[in-house]
Amino acid sequence: MATASPSQKPSPERIFSTLNAFQNTAALKTAIELDIFTAIADGADQASAIAQRVNAAERGVRILCDYLTIHGFLSKSDCCYALTQESAIFLNRKSPAYMGTLANFLASEDHKRDFDALTASVRKGGAAVAQGDHTKPNDKLWVSFARSMAPLTTVSAGFIAELAGAKKGEACKVLDIAAGHGMFGINIAKQNPNAQVTAVDWAPVLAVAMENADAAGVADRVAFRPGSAFEADLGDGYDFVLLTNIFHHFDMPTCEKLMRRVHAALKPGGKAITLEFVPNEDRVSPTMAAGFSLIMLAETDAGDAYTFSEYEKMFGNAGFAKTTLHPVPGMPQQVLLSEK
Amino acid sequence: MATASPSQKPSPERIFSTLNAFQNTAALKTAIELDIFTAIADGADQASAIAQRVNAAERGVRILCDYLTIHGFLSKSDCCYALTQESAIFLNRKSPAYMGTLANFLASEDHKRDFDALTASVRKGGAAVAQGDHTKPNDKLWVSFARSMAPLTTVSAGFIAELAGAKKGEACKVLDIAAGHGMFGINIAKQNPNAQVTAVDWAPVLAVAMENADAAGVADRVAFRPGSAFEADLGDGYDFVLLTNIFHHFDMPTCEKLMRRVHAALKPGGKAITLEFVPNEDRVSPTMAAGFSLIMLAETDAGDAYTFSEYEKMFGNAGFAKTTLHPVPGMPQQVLLSEK
Repeated sequence: MATASPSQKPSPERIFSTLNAFQNTAALKTAIELDIFTAIADGADQASAIAQRVNAAERGVRILCDYLTIHGFLSKSDCCYALTQESAIFLNRKSPAYMGTLANFLASEDHKRDFDALTASVRKGGAAVAQGDHTKPNDKLWVSFARSMAPLTTVSAGFIAELAGAKKGEACKVLDIAAGHGMFGINIAKQNPNAQVTAVDWAPVLAVAMENADAAGVADRVAFRPGSAFEADLGDGYDFVLLTNIFHHFDMPTCEKLMRRVHAALKPGGKAITLEFVPNEDRVSPTMAAGFSLIMLAETDAGDAYTFSEYEKMFGNAGFAKTTLHPVPGMPQQVLLSEK
Repeated sequence: MATASPSQKPSPERIFSTLNAFQNTAALKTAIELDIFTAIADGADQASAIAQRVNAAERGVRILCDYLTIHGFLSKSDCCYALTQESAIFLNRKSPAYMGTLANFLASEDHKRDFDALTASVRKGGAAVAQGDHTKPNDKLWVSFARSMAPLTTVSAGFIAELAGAKKGEACKVLDIAAGHGMFGINIAKQNPNAQVTAVDWAPVLAVAMENADAAGVADRVAFRPGSAFEADLGDGYDFVLLTNIFHHFDMPTCEKLMRRVHAALKPGGKAITLEFVPNEDRVSPTMAAGFSLIMLAETDAGDAYTFSEYEKMFGNAGFAKTTLHPVPGMPQQVLLSEK
């Protein structure tokens, strides 16, 4: 029995589905936690078989898998579920591009709490939660970030390594500021055996980067400088300085201050490589880059997703004559390349 | 500076946006709480003017309004925001079709808590939270429902009144089971001066229905029977029995049990009118009706969004020879009409 197609008249459906959108997050997080996608990849295709495999109730699995189908994470034919191409690549735990760990960070209790306080944050114009804006030394959120978000870097780290000419194999010094998991610098070190990388971040976060450098077999060419990007001795004479996902946490004067330190640390002709969410000048497109501002409102005192013209101005004030913008293929972020 | 269009290659964007989807709920709930839409309707169109009017920070309002634009609730031209047609109708507090109160129920702390426990609910196959499934006597959730959800009934209550022949004005007895806000029965009483309505629900919920009946000027033709739909004396000889949003809370044997009581309460030729989310037989379309199952998994012991064939079977077992399905124009729900 088919139902009618949606009416073209004004409808409250968008309001209804948006007020229920938190359920989409919960459904995907639960499916990742239960490893539903891996169970299906391994051949379980009906609710009963999947339920047995993930140790859950058949009713629960049937309803969850239907919901995942509705939202494009599975397909369904008769009573059999199958992975979509995206789910097979990114949500099967056995896939090399597995990204299920993202749920631990993006949909964490910390983030949900920050958004539960969103009304107060809009009134205040910045993070209203008592825990503050996650920029204090050793905030534990960044260890969670380092542990969870590395898989999202694969494409952008490859793109950045290419911009840094890693495949040419020339000797070069790379500084990775607020390195987190360290994957951006580590990836250059992997591709270029003559690259020396220095990673700066809080000590508990660098512990994760050390593990990753070790696992990648480049630990002997990655040095670690624990501390704040604004206060640590950064060293100098670098060919490249990586600034991935850091500027959006701060207001423009603070970004300029950091970029002046970067300028001083680069050798003449060296390049700053910034990875960011860069909305168009209208600030409402493209969807993900522009929408990122709201996270900064809920979680920082004065951060933002800055536009290209704002970055040009900040980086110009910090001494960089020219900055160019490079979309990362297939990803919502962009790279800004600034030459000293 | 425009960015590239999204790549057609497999991308983690859907995963990223779904894990962030809880932010959409928070953004809309905050905008409703701050009454942003009413401020814009009243002529404030730039972030500074809106901020002044809603007593919030300009930075907060600018970022929130950009986010609402991204998600289709506002439009933006240069720095000026305007309401979309839907927002003007449903989110301006001064509009007769205002639905902002939905946020209090749909995105309540109760519901968010239920979905925070979704993994445990899938394992168990039903609501895993200590508070249980909201079917115990006088559960306070239903007072919140009655207070918040009435605006969503306008279209479906009109549709049901038409099915009940309200405009003909013939004398008729109507029983409204689990009446909640009472708007379905009240609407029939408003349209048909010869209709007598009996509303059944828990006493604290009926207090809301009494207020609504009074406001509608039909209090003298609405009687109230506090108690459970399964245990209260329902009376008999009814022309119509309304069953709006009740069956989805229960398993099929319980639904059948209720429908047998309805059959006994109807006069010969009387009709049961059921309003429900009725997914297609594939259980994965249409989006909202099929997706409703997940709410029932998270919040009930054994409820579901039943298909038409399941309703036909349950209602047939309860003594109804024939049930027909009627989509409510422009709304995600459907009406089932069953004749005694």
